[in-house]
Amino acid sequence: MNSHRSDLLKAFIQQPEWSWTKEAQHEGRVHHWIENVNEWDGKKADAVLLGMPLSRSSISVSGASEYPDAFRKSWRGFSTFNLDEGVDLSSLSVLDLGNVMMHGTDILESHRRIQAATVEAAKRFNDSVTIGIGGDHSVTACAVRGLKEVYPDETIGILQLDTHLDLRDTSPNGPSNGTPIRQLIDGGAVKGEHVFNIGLHGYFNAPALISYAKEHRVNMITLKQARQKGITETVQAALAQLKQTTDRLYVTVDMDVLDIGFAPGVPASTPGGMTTQELFDALLVIGKDESLKHIDFVCLDPVKDTVGLPTVKAGVYSFLQVLTGMALAKRERGE
Amino acid sequence: MNSHRSDLLKAFIQQPEWSWTKEAQHEGRVHHWIENVNEWDGKKADAVLLGMPLSRSSISVSGASEYPDAFRKSWRGFSTFNLDEGVDLSSLSVLDLGNVMMHGTDILESHRRIQAATVEAAKRFNDSVTIGIGGDHSVTACAVRGLKEVYPDETIGILQLDTHLDLRDTSPNGPSNGTPIRQLIDGGAVKGEHVFNIGLHGYFNAPALISYAKEHRVNMITLKQARQKGITETVQAALAQLKQTTDRLYVTVDMDVLDIGFAPGVPASTPGGMTTQELFDALLVIGKDESLKHIDFVCLDPVKDTVGLPTVKAGVYSFLQVLTGMALAKRERGE
Amino acid sequence: MNSHRSDLLKAFIQQPEWSWTKEAQHEGRVHHWIENVNEWDGKKADAVLLGMPLSRSSISVSGASEYPDAFRKSWRGFSTFNLDEGVDLSSLSVLDLGNVMMHGTDILESHRRIQAATVEAAKRFNDSVTIGIGGDHSVTACAVRGLKEVYPDETIGILQLDTHLDLRDTSPNGPSNGTPIRQLIDGGAVKGEHVFNIGLHGYFNAPALISYAKEHRVNMITLKQARQKGITETVQAALAQLKQTTDRLYVTVDMDVLDIGFAPGVPASTPGGMTTQELFDALLVIGKDESLKHIDFVCLDPVKDTVGLPTVKAGVYSFLQVLTGMALAKRERGE
Amino acid sequence: MNSHRSDLLKAFIQQPEWSWTKEAQHEGRVHHWIENVNEWDGKKADAVLLGMPLSRSSISVSGASEYPDAFRKSWRGFSTFNLDEGVDLSSLSVLDLGNVMMHGTDILESHRRIQAATVEAAKRFNDSVTIGIGGDHSVTACAVRGLKEVYPDETIGILQLDTHLDLRDTSPNGPSNGTPIRQLIDGGAVKGEHVFNIGLHGYFNAPALISYAKEHRVNMITLKQARQKGITETVQAALAQLKQTTDRLYVTVDMDVLDIGFAPGVPASTPGGMTTQELFDALLVIGKDESLKHIDFVCLDPVKDTVGLPTVKAGVYSFLQVLTGMALAKRERGE
Amino acid sequence: MNSHRSDLLKAFIQQPEWSWTKEAQHEGRVHHWIENVNEWDGKKADAVLLGMPLSRSSISVSGASEYPDAFRKSWRGFSTFNLDEGVDLSSLSVLDLGNVMMHGTDILESHRRIQAATVEAAKRFNDSVTIGIGGDHSVTACAVRGLKEVYPDETIGILQLDTHLDLRDTSPNGPSNGTPIRQLIDGGAVKGEHVFNIGLHGYFNAPALISYAKEHRVNMITLKQARQKGITETVQAALAQLKQTTDRLYVTVDMDVLDIGFAPGVPASTPGGMTTQELFDALLVIGKDESLKHIDFVCLDPVKDTVGLPTVKAGVYSFLQVLTGMALAKRERGE
Amino acid sequence: MNSHRSDLLKAFIQQPEWSWTKEAQHEGRVHHWIENVNEWDGKKADAVLLGMPLSRSSISVSGASEYPDAFRKSWRGFSTFNLDEGVDLSSLSVLDLGNVMMHGTDILESHRRIQAATVEAAKRFNDSVTIGIGGDHSVTACAVRGLKEVYPDETIGILQLDTHLDLRDTSPNGPSNGTPIRQLIDGGAVKGEHVFNIGLHGYFNAPALISYAKEHRVNMITLKQARQKGITETVQAALAQLKQTTDRLYVTVDMDVLDIGFAPGVPASTPGGMTTQELFDALLVIGKDESLKHIDFVCLDPVKDTVGLPTVKAGVYSFLQVLTGMALAKRERGE
Repeated sequence: MNSHRSDLLKAFIQQPEWSWTKEAQHEGRVHHWIENVNEWDGKKADAVLLGMPLSRSSISVSGASEYPDAFRKSWRGFSTFNLDEGVDLSSLSVLDLGNVMMHGTDILESHRRIQAATVEAAKRFNDSVTIGIGGDHSVTACAVRGLKEVYPDETIGILQLDTHLDLRDTSPNGPSNGTPIRQLIDGGAVKGEHVFNIGLHGYFNAPALISYAKEHRVNMITLKQARQKGITETVQAALAQLKQTTDRLYVTVDMDVLDIGFAPGVPASTPGGMTTQELFDALLVIGKDESLKHIDFVCLDPVKDTVGLPTVKAGVYSFLQVLTGMALAKRERGE
Repeated sequence: MNSHRSDLLKAFIQQPEWSWTKEAQHEGRVHHWIENVNEWDGKKADAVLLGMPLSRSSISVSGASEYPDAFRKSWRGFSTFNLDEGVDLSSLSVLDLGNVMMHGTDILESHRRIQAATVEAAKRFNDSVTIGIGGDHSVTACAVRGLKEVYPDETIGILQLDTHLDLRDTSPNGPSNGTPIRQLIDGGAVKGEHVFNIGLHGYFNAPALISYAKEHRVNMITLKQARQKGITETVQAALAQLKQTTDRLYVTVDMDVLDIGFAPGVPASTPGGMTTQELFDALLVIGKDESLKHIDFVCLDPVKDTVGLPTVKAGVYSFLQVLTGMALAKRERGE
Repeated sequence: MNSHRSDLLKAFIQQPEWSWTKEAQHEGRVHHWIENVNEWDGKKADAVLLGMPLSRSSISVSGASEYPDAFRKSWRGFSTFNLDEGVDLSSLSVLDLGNVMMHGTDILESHRRIQAATVEAAKRFNDSVTIGIGGDHSVTACAVRGLKEVYPDETIGILQLDTHLDLRDTSPNGPSNGTPIRQLIDGGAVKGEHVFNIGLHGYFNAPALISYAKEHRVNMITLKQARQKGITETVQAALAQLKQTTDRLYVTVDMDVLDIGFAPGVPASTPGGMTTQELFDALLVIGKDESLKHIDFVCLDPVKDTVGLPTVKAGVYSFLQVLTGMALAKRERGE
Repeated sequence: MNSHRSDLLKAFIQQPEWSWTKEAQHEGRVHHWIENVNEWDGKKADAVLLGMPLSRSSISVSGASEYPDAFRKSWRGFSTFNLDEGVDLSSLSVLDLGNVMMHGTDILESHRRIQAATVEAAKRFNDSVTIGIGGDHSVTACAVRGLKEVYPDETIGILQLDTHLDLRDTSPNGPSNGTPIRQLIDGGAVKGEHVFNIGLHGYFNAPALISYAKEHRVNMITLKQARQKGITETVQAALAQLKQTTDRLYVTVDMDVLDIGFAPGVPASTPGGMTTQELFDALLVIGKDESLKHIDFVCLDPVKDTVGLPTVKAGVYSFLQVLTGMALAKRERGE
Repeated sequence: MNSHRSDLLKAFIQQPEWSWTKEAQHEGRVHHWIENVNEWDGKKADAVLLGMPLSRSSISVSGASEYPDAFRKSWRGFSTFNLDEGVDLSSLSVLDLGNVMMHGTDILESHRRIQAATVEAAKRFNDSVTIGIGGDHSVTACAVRGLKEVYPDETIGILQLDTHLDLRDTSPNGPSNGTPIRQLIDGGAVKGEHVFNIGLHGYFNAPALISYAKEHRVNMITLKQARQKGITETVQAALAQLKQTTDRLYVTVDMDVLDIGFAPGVPASTPGGMTTQELFDALLVIGKDESLKHIDFVCLDPVKDTVGLPTVKAGVYSFLQVLTGMALAKRERGE
Repeated sequence: MNSHRSDLLKAFIQQPEWSWTKEAQHEGRVHHWIENVNEWDGKKADAVLLGMPLSRSSISVSGASEYPDAFRKSWRGFSTFNLDEGVDLSSLSVLDLGNVMMHGTDILESHRRIQAATVEAAKRFNDSVTIGIGGDHSVTACAVRGLKEVYPDETIGILQLDTHLDLRDTSPNGPSNGTPIRQLIDGGAVKGEHVFNIGLHGYFNAPALISYAKEHRVNMITLKQARQKGITETVQAALAQLKQTTDRLYVTVDMDVLDIGFAPGVPASTPGGMTTQELFDALLVIGKDESLKHIDFVCLDPVKDTVGLPTVKAGVYSFLQVLTGMALAKRERGE
């Protein structure tokens, strides 16, 4: 074999999924930065990420269980540099802890595993922001119960971006995706008055649930109200109130808060919802806030997304907005 | 058979389309509230609804004839409670009168039936707001002619939300969906100066039609103008002018006024159109106005809608916005 | 009101979903013939139909839970007259017993309900052929266990049309859709040698499962073998053998036996599978056989079907082929 | 300007839709061969083609009106050379007479125009085979009535390839696409016994229509029967019988005779229908037969076809098969 | 033949693609106004249009090569009258020069042809605005190099509307669509400080490219900044600066500047991008500016657009906005 | 941390893409068997696989460059056990050599790399069957030229399964996907009489190309002829003839030989093509033949495949059929 050949071979044979075009796109990409870890011990990070691929608990057929992996695949298309804010996210350390393994047919067992994994993550990474990637909204109840287990003496406050109240009763059908906030209130983990739901609008909550919300003094802030005051101002005000009354903040972002025109891949999204830009602005504010400790993103079903995956991309963008906020705050703190 | 079994059977066997998930979604839903009536006599209602499933009269192939039924099916996903305004629509009584039966191949006969049905509905429910669900825009000419028949001495004013003027000449091809306003002006039922068209924009009306509009003094208010003044202010101003100059208001909403990004299920929608939020705001104002007597929604083709049916959902939302306005006005009146 | 008007009104106003075109299609349609019953007592029928809308138990995300209702909706497009065989199915009486109500998050409870409902149906309609409409393949294990409960002394034989063996172990993940035949063999309800699986082909069964099948003497008849002998001859031979060795026949049709070109709405369908025509021929033979007592159709996911719903239509056609066979046999018997 | 530039310009600037790739595909293509004529006088041809773009007369929403143009656009992808038979179709002369202009809202007027155009084409091109491109099946009644007008003393025979009988009564809804054969029998233009329908199968004809067919002695040949005898043999036998009993043959091909797996773009296609190969074989036999004088292709809706337009391509292929048969017969006759 | 017939024939037979509905839509349409020319000599026009159907040079698979023809086909649906501005575009003369013919496999040859054609167009139509229709963004480098060849002593300024910097290095993979601005800066045709990029946002540019941009003093104006200042004000300010520092303006519109919700047919579009309305406003300002000499639109892939072609329509709308600006300026100048 | 927790963590946290359902499907799967190798030296195998992800050379826009990776991703769904033949493919050793790295804009350089990589693979694995995975059909010319370089004294025979002749002239547009066989004949690498093309049918080859084929004595065997003789018999006969006249066999499978109903993901597939079953049968015969040394699969575009990826799955199935043939032959040889 002549040496030219040999060089050619070395130069031009690639492993699958590494053809040049993909390679060329990889410089400074998110997947080069976020570290996937097998072993949790002895690690430190600004944020840790945990997949919660459960959607058998959804009222309607849902493929939200596919989101954690679709999300990671999509982030290969994103740079670590946020141009609007002029900040490189690689100034933060972020660990990907992997996915919680789900049981095939025992939904309650899957819920227990999500809770247990949240407990472990919260203990080992107690200086990090924990980021849960659902899955459907039932995972939020598990995660918050886990935090209550780790921090039994702390009062937990919830900032919820959602079109729905998620206050359905569990008695007829168990802890489905329509029930997480109800579970937490009924179970005593969270008080209704410590829940702020921003983004409610239209005709998507039954009268009985609104009555429950009022009775338990859940703070319902409609999208109309939020727009009148300003989305970011509304979020800031809610965060301020929660800081005064609670010890630990949990943010839950139900992607169905988005307008159906921007989020075809969230089956429960509706007309009249938030624009992606509004959500991105809200999440930047949340990321900047020093009280942010725990956040999750739920109910995005990549199986139903349209060609080009606009909703999955909006999901990755949302996640990066939180990190941008954190990076700006870190820079401001001079770290 | 032991009794345990028997109870199981009673508890767990359901009729088709009534599995629990659907059931659970049904509490306080629109389809539990709007009453479908076979017999019109002796009924009273705040509003009555009549399907006009005709689209053989469309210039292009159209499935808008499928909309009345798709619309009713979709409203099962909507609550009666409007969260933004804090009002439960079930404070209104709304009757579903069914659909006008169309002829299979005689379009003019179908037009006659729509006119006749409008006459009947207007007579029997003269205290109600009548709501027509098209069908293509040709149904508007039939409905207005029917009203003129019932109220021959009244001057009719038209508030039109539309991207197009719908002023095409009927001579070459008959009363198609591009002609309704022209039919009414040429036929003497309505004067051009009593037509206010809000939402016109872009490059979607031929120069000749604009000349006709100017000649007949049709009030053309572009979307750009409406946005500069404010959408709701623009609608209010048009309503005020129509109240001064006419006796009876007919509102026609061509769903192609929406931007194509929000309304994939309206084949004639275009870039640069209204957002759904803008339309919802306009319809709330219209619903609140005491002069509202007749309204229709046309040209939404569910067959062309994308997965998740965003346009059909926007259509139901639009309809409910009118009712929300009515409910607010009713509450204000202390009824 | 003049009488012309009144007549018009009577003649031309229709209830939703009853415009003429649909009406015209309804003469002699399946939905006019199959009777939906609320009350089971005191009824008799040649066949009874029970929906089993469970697919949370599927390994992959599945919308097969939507099939029972999609199936009933689609049959509105089918006549009761089979032209090929010159027989009108309305010579048979068929009752639709409705759906078994599923629990929202407790899959095993749903399985128990399917078993209980099967027990009830088998007892009350012990002269009828019972037809289960899944749902995913996990429902078959429930149904057969139910029959074993009713007929503890009978040996049950299974004729399975399937691309897969469905012999996965339940230990890691419970009674999912990959396990029903394994559940029945391991649980002692059925012997491996009393299972005939026709339609196996290609590369879709793990070596370990094939070893299990051999060990338990499951009769594996590949599609290639069936085609060489003739599909109908193969089915007849299997039925003959089962009649000699077992007391009660259960037929289970996993729609993934179909070629992916004909069944886009069965996610597990593969290239190299049966044509719809081959399946229809097989089902006619099965319907004609006097040993037919129980049959189910599973794993058809209407959510994934393409526009026009070819797979759902193939599902209805399959169901009617069984009934055609029964009608021919009844005619032959002179009933 | 230097001459190099000028040459470049001449060489490399092309008119729209003529970039090289398309050009390269155009050698020996169908659209280079079939001549589109504005003026009918003084022309001669082996076959003439007339578009009949009407589908407002369809029971269900149909875009079959778009087929004549979609058909012509698709044939740009086809060569004039049939490889299987080794014959170049350019040995035939074929004229494209254009489309009959439809009225926008008067369906009966459109029917009259189709009839009138058929009369003209039959008179002027009485030595040519006329090929109608629908449109929905209602056009067939117009065309046959036109022929009866031109040839009042001839008995017309119909060979129909169809899943349906198309024998619905016109009284409730006029001459829709479900009625053409009934129109012709009831109107006396054709006798039921002179109609041969090949391809009937399954559950797609109401019992009442089958009774009508029997009463009028329509020859119903099921697809099952045709396959048992052989498709081509069945067609040949029908042609032979028609030649003995009638003077003039009209062939009508309802593309819904195809299996839904091969014809997603024919909304009325069903499982269990003809394969494209079977239809192509049948059409070759028809093309070869010297009795072929008139043929139409109807009910293909390109709007509903899937990406890649498999059904439109099957439609062009079908059309070319007839011409291949004609070219083979011409070669055999030594012309 | 009687004369009635003859008249019918004349009246009602149409050439393909000219059935009435289409005809009726054609009055005052764009395709009636823009003149397609075979011969360039001796022509004058306000604007000339040249298709550049190249996308083999795209990093990812792209069908942008189909856009020039899809664009021309879509403009048949647009009127020449801009309602918002009350101006008829037919007051301008616009010539369609056709497409540059691409080589099948030699991308650099295709680039040379685009450059050569640009040179010719610039020379012959030096009083016209030249409008290039891509194709992918690599065509911009060719076009600007062509202008530099014609006007070697002029300083060229670039106004770029884009989500990306397009500053990738050509060394590993040649002049692909990610490289045009880099090619021009590295090649000395344009200085970095003479490039204004408006619309940058989010996470879509690698850190290394941002460093290059800073080093070469490319003016990066984020969408956030543009919105804070006002989109039109931002564009006006950039134009003003370019006029002061450069001799000749080239505007390049990468359609991926649009939000993915409005531009599904631009594979590189992202969440958080411009709305179509914002782009339309920007283009109106650009069209009004007397410094406008050259503009191109690139990277719109009609193959990936959704049903209804919203992105192609937005592309045509964008093009017409520039012409509207030009028509307003012409009217103002009293021409 | 208590030990229960720690165990939970170990047991239930998984790396991305390894949730249980996927894991459970992985036993005995193809991706567990085929070994991906970075280093070629010192390896031995029954077959080696090389991806050739080039489709910039396609006449029409093509995403066939995505196939090698889509193919590998899809094989995760396939077992190593062929049920029809009762053989476990893991009795063969198969190495995945990766992909040839393509240049971004220099197509001829990409062609050179494919040729060079083929030379290397042929030299190092001269006892193995080499399997090329395209890419478009232009890669075949590169591969065969590479073999001719390694074995200059051997006569190469080509067995081509294809709807097209691929005999276009390269002079106008270079070595595109329509030219490979012409390149080889014109370049002297292969004689026309040593090419057997099986599967030709219909109207998809220009008359001029057929003349070229006849002139060079290319063996054209139509699908009709193949079906009359039997597909497998036809392939066997062609192999026998090639063995007599040539020294080295190259098989090229253009997936467009498949019928468009079975292969929506091959843009050039047509009606009237092979069924997947026919192709699978042919490939089994080819795999069994001891003369098989080199084979490629080309022109499958996964980007255009429908939901469920039936064509990609047919591509994997086809590949496995060749290996099944090889495994059967190996077993027969007692290895």
